[in-house]
Amino acid sequence: MASPRVAVLGASGYAGAIAAMLLYRHPHFALAHVTARSEAGQRLDDVHPRTRVPLELEPWDPAVQSGVDAALVCWPHRVAAPAVAALRERGVRVVDLSADFRLRDRGIYEDWYGPHGAPELFGQAVYGLPELHRAAIAGADLVANPGCYPTAALLALAPLARAGLLGDIVIDAKSGVSGAGREPTATTHFIAADENMTPYKVERHRHTPEIEQELAGQGAALTITFTPHLVPLAQGELVSCYVTPARDADPDELLELYDDAYATEPFVEVRTGPPGVQEVRDTNFCRMSVHHDGRTGRVLVFSSIDNLWKGAASQAVQNLNVMFGRDEREGIA
Amino acid sequence: MASPRVAVLGASGYAGAIAAMLLYRHPHFALAHVTARSEAGQRLDDVHPRTRVPLELEPWDPAVQSGVDAALVCWPHRVAAPAVAALRERGVRVVDLSADFRLRDRGIYEDWYGPHGAPELFGQAVYGLPELHRAAIAGADLVANPGCYPTAALLALAPLARAGLLGDIVIDAKSGVSGAGREPTATTHFIAADENMTPYKVERHRHTPEIEQELAGQGAALTITFTPHLVPLAQGELVSCYVTPARDADPDELLELYDDAYATEPFVEVRTGPPGVQEVRDTNFCRMSVHHDGRTGRVLVFSSIDNLWKGAASQAVQNLNVMFGRDEREGIA
Amino acid sequence: MASPRVAVLGASGYAGAIAAMLLYRHPHFALAHVTARSEAGQRLDDVHPRTRVPLELEPWDPAVQSGVDAALVCWPHRVAAPAVAALRERGVRVVDLSADFRLRDRGIYEDWYGPHGAPELFGQAVYGLPELHRAAIAGADLVANPGCYPTAALLALAPLARAGLLGDIVIDAKSGVSGAGREPTATTHFIAADENMTPYKVERHRHTPEIEQELAGQGAALTITFTPHLVPLAQGELVSCYVTPARDADPDELLELYDDAYATEPFVEVRTGPPGVQEVRDTNFCRMSVHHDGRTGRVLVFSSIDNLWKGAASQAVQNLNVMFGRDEREGIA
Amino acid sequence: MASPRVAVLGASGYAGAIAAMLLYRHPHFALAHVTARSEAGQRLDDVHPRTRVPLELEPWDPAVQSGVDAALVCWPHRVAAPAVAALRERGVRVVDLSADFRLRDRGIYEDWYGPHGAPELFGQAVYGLPELHRAAIAGADLVANPGCYPTAALLALAPLARAGLLGDIVIDAKSGVSGAGREPTATTHFIAADENMTPYKVERHRHTPEIEQELAGQGAALTITFTPHLVPLAQGELVSCYVTPARDADPDELLELYDDAYATEPFVEVRTGPPGVQEVRDTNFCRMSVHHDGRTGRVLVFSSIDNLWKGAASQAVQNLNVMFGRDEREGIA
Repeated sequence: MASPRVAVLGASGYAGAIAAMLLYRHPHFALAHVTARSEAGQRLDDVHPRTRVPLELEPWDPAVQSGVDAALVCWPHRVAAPAVAALRERGVRVVDLSADFRLRDRGIYEDWYGPHGAPELFGQAVYGLPELHRAAIAGADLVANPGCYPTAALLALAPLARAGLLGDIVIDAKSGVSGAGREPTATTHFIAADENMTPYKVERHRHTPEIEQELAGQGAALTITFTPHLVPLAQGELVSCYVTPARDADPDELLELYDDAYATEPFVEVRTGPPGVQEVRDTNFCRMSVHHDGRTGRVLVFSSIDNLWKGAASQAVQNLNVMFGRDEREGIA
Repeated sequence: MASPRVAVLGASGYAGAIAAMLLYRHPHFALAHVTARSEAGQRLDDVHPRTRVPLELEPWDPAVQSGVDAALVCWPHRVAAPAVAALRERGVRVVDLSADFRLRDRGIYEDWYGPHGAPELFGQAVYGLPELHRAAIAGADLVANPGCYPTAALLALAPLARAGLLGDIVIDAKSGVSGAGREPTATTHFIAADENMTPYKVERHRHTPEIEQELAGQGAALTITFTPHLVPLAQGELVSCYVTPARDADPDELLELYDDAYATEPFVEVRTGPPGVQEVRDTNFCRMSVHHDGRTGRVLVFSSIDNLWKGAASQAVQNLNVMFGRDEREGIA
Repeated sequence: MASPRVAVLGASGYAGAIAAMLLYRHPHFALAHVTARSEAGQRLDDVHPRTRVPLELEPWDPAVQSGVDAALVCWPHRVAAPAVAALRERGVRVVDLSADFRLRDRGIYEDWYGPHGAPELFGQAVYGLPELHRAAIAGADLVANPGCYPTAALLALAPLARAGLLGDIVIDAKSGVSGAGREPTATTHFIAADENMTPYKVERHRHTPEIEQELAGQGAALTITFTPHLVPLAQGELVSCYVTPARDADPDELLELYDDAYATEPFVEVRTGPPGVQEVRDTNFCRMSVHHDGRTGRVLVFSSIDNLWKGAASQAVQNLNVMFGRDEREGIA
Repeated sequence: MASPRVAVLGASGYAGAIAAMLLYRHPHFALAHVTARSEAGQRLDDVHPRTRVPLELEPWDPAVQSGVDAALVCWPHRVAAPAVAALRERGVRVVDLSADFRLRDRGIYEDWYGPHGAPELFGQAVYGLPELHRAAIAGADLVANPGCYPTAALLALAPLARAGLLGDIVIDAKSGVSGAGREPTATTHFIAADENMTPYKVERHRHTPEIEQELAGQGAALTITFTPHLVPLAQGELVSCYVTPARDADPDELLELYDDAYATEPFVEVRTGPPGVQEVRDTNFCRMSVHHDGRTGRVLVFSSIDNLWKGAASQAVQNLNVMFGRDEREGIA
């Protein structure tokens, strides 16, 4: 069987470049196109040497790049949707890494993001967190790759949600600077980020409704507090979840819940001690620990991922593997 | 009037070295002695060049270093107490930077720290957070310098405590690596800390009872959740406080509370946007913001300090200034 | 005597902000104006909180800011010269931190920088390295503050130049990212600079002719090899000088040369072991070591400064102190 | 054909852990044993999670671990030699990552390292830089894996050496902190290394004679100046070579020399612009640029590697590939 041909749209961004790197070396897929806007005409391995992908970045042209079997769209929200629509029209199976197809309530999308760029497709995607929606992803033609924070948070909280244990939640999240994108700004300047850390988008980070939607899908409809922080490292995300349980939880039940949920998952590691982000750097793993605080009765879950890998690029490839019936670990383990 | 003579015990540690540097340049005090154990005999500016204090580190000898008017004890808990006792016996006024005299409940001390090294003095100290206890510090002969996390957390939460607004609290704290001390360990190795972040001492960090004690003193007796994290930077501490208010709070009331509390404080800066740690690096400032999350009703307070300065050394000098009737800002602003 | 009033032009840049901070706290000078272009109207302590200078940034207007006794011009080359001319016309004494008045050969200036913005003043400035030109600076109305690399390199090499020991020189220099300025660019992006290091401007860094000119002034006319490297830290510059001596040098002679040159200098520290940049961070010190390599006969000199302080802002204040007959250390030690 | 079985001695160190990780995933070799001293009994993926090698670390016992086809010895010099001898006695083919078998002059070894731990084997190894000694490595039973600095420096200088162009050399090298090993020390403490850089082992780094020996082998017998510097990043090494050519060189000749040397090498990238270390992080690549400085006639070569990969672990696997007749890129590209 011929290798399915894949295009990566937006391969000059951090996540797109890693996705292209993974697909270029993938045993099953063939990387057919990589696109970029301002850097079109350059080779990807000139723009991102570590990828060592010797392909030329092309300008996006639906007529050209849609002659593929699948596409990863690594564009910002709002501009991603029309490209996704163009690809879907031509029958291309799509993993969209933007936020455009993650939410299922149109009003909520518009509240947090503004008008949608392809309303006819809104609500058509499967939410691409394989550990929660594997079967649906397998049959999907359009998969919405989760946000980085939701990936780490949902893997941390889903077992509690399903067990009816989520009473109230505070999520304190910390991310490396690559999460802010490749655009040089006052925030991403080395001098501003180095030896610094700061909360950002307090009360209004767009991953909030995404986490709430998916927790509701696991049985826990509630309003959460979610605050991200910027920390001085390149890649890595740590999500600290403080849960006031809806009923008393005991430590043994907690361990069992997480063991049941993840013992056979290839990319989730539940450990006794709290995870660091170094342990998952440049991997598709999510590593976590769950704790019962006897003094307060709270349940604490700490979960770490690489925001560019499991939080974006490698999870997109994991979804592609599932969509095409391959071993989920191919090309990313 | 002659300058009061001051000794710094444990001047080879991070906080001790900064305290010595500040006192050596202080317009009112005279730095008379600096002590160290394994580095005795070396000059402080050889061990810590940035201090540029050309004094020789002496071994601790109560007969020698107690011929001073005041001492800063920068030793670990358990070993600090006997030295403090020896100094107090000779009438030396002491600011103790260890945890030995911060708690007022002997049982709690022993639960968290073990047997006390100078039980006769236990409970005799004033808790040295000038913004909360200025008057008592002025008359004190023994001041217990607060822990770094309690400093940032208490300044953040005291206005809410006094207003009866503290219902339930989660504190997610983040600290630079200097907080782990100067001992080379697997944790402080550059390769372990660089590009990493991780929770530590989950459920059992010793600053927990200290924060609870002082919040109770401000009118809010409650059990808190407090989790520190290690982040890859040298100095700086950020404390993110998630408060479920005991009653509805409105944004205007919050701003007023913090304005009332801190408008005239020389070292507390209340700002609209969330603080970064860079903004307070190498200073005695605490910088904070308070937010009302309309979606959940929660109150969020973010507070940043330099863990070695306001969290230790410069706050000790601030206390010394208060104890000796000087302008609180002398030598540290 | 009233405090001389000083203006800082370009106070929103890294060096300008530090200069403003130092002058605002200076015991002798009064900071009268701080200017900025795009950030005019904001307060300096909003743009650069660590300065804690509560002055409003003004747009540059010669009619307004030239009513001062002295000015520090912290603008890029080419645009600095006309501002300097405008200030000089009104009798203001100027320390110019740009490269516009450092060179004395007009042809060389134009080769490396292009047309000069105030040709009538070209060649009128004193080169502001106090350790080499103190007397001339004292009487000068226009002082050209040295480049950061030249500062470290010339202090390292001047004793050898004067002793006729400079045969051939390779200078390998390393600088923190603040040297690249506050503009967010692909180079200064955290992700590009973090965990990276790279040579830059190979064969063509503009500090080359400046170093050659000043070495010639110390008696060593020669063509040098100078290569800067970008390293992942905020402030700090290390210059490694590899000298093939013009005649045999012996270790004792070397030590004597450096001792003679610097024993009484307040801001130069000659040490036995090689210097780190941490030791001079946020100071006006230059710290160095000199070594004789018995295997090759080479002389090695390592010299470190803070590129924003001794390499720019604090050296400008040091020059101002000298120009106004003050103790050279005032406000910067 | 059965997979050759390989043991990694010293798998708890940085290089050993990476070597074990690479071999565990290698398509041809089977990782049979991993040894450690103080961490014996733990699993490698507990000590070094990123390896994800679920093998138990064993104490070194020649009777146990020598039942393999090949071994990588990742021990310090002096203690490596006896283990190598024990393995060789049992017919195991060895790549030794220590310095014990790199030098061919016994006197020089003893001058720089002290008495040798297996004198009977001294001088029996092939120097394992495949780009220079591929054929000899293919037939060797004992390969001495090069030091990290020699790897980068020799690849940078060999083309000039062979062309008779090496007149005089200064090598200014910069390395990330992992080069100092996993032992927590005052030097490797985060606070000492972060935001710092410093020369070290001035005039006496042990890689000096190794570089000289191998340059002589390429036709250039000379005494070099080599100075390493510590920079604040985890992995990465940049070697800046300043060559005074023995005769005039012209830019075109230089490019041709490097093209001839490396155009077909799978792991050497010659580029126009100077390399950064990020571009080779976690890879077996060496990336370099060569420049002719028209002002001074000097030739400048900049070369970067990952000190733990091409400078140690992945190069050892590359050697193993060559020794066992495999495609050199297997398991490391």
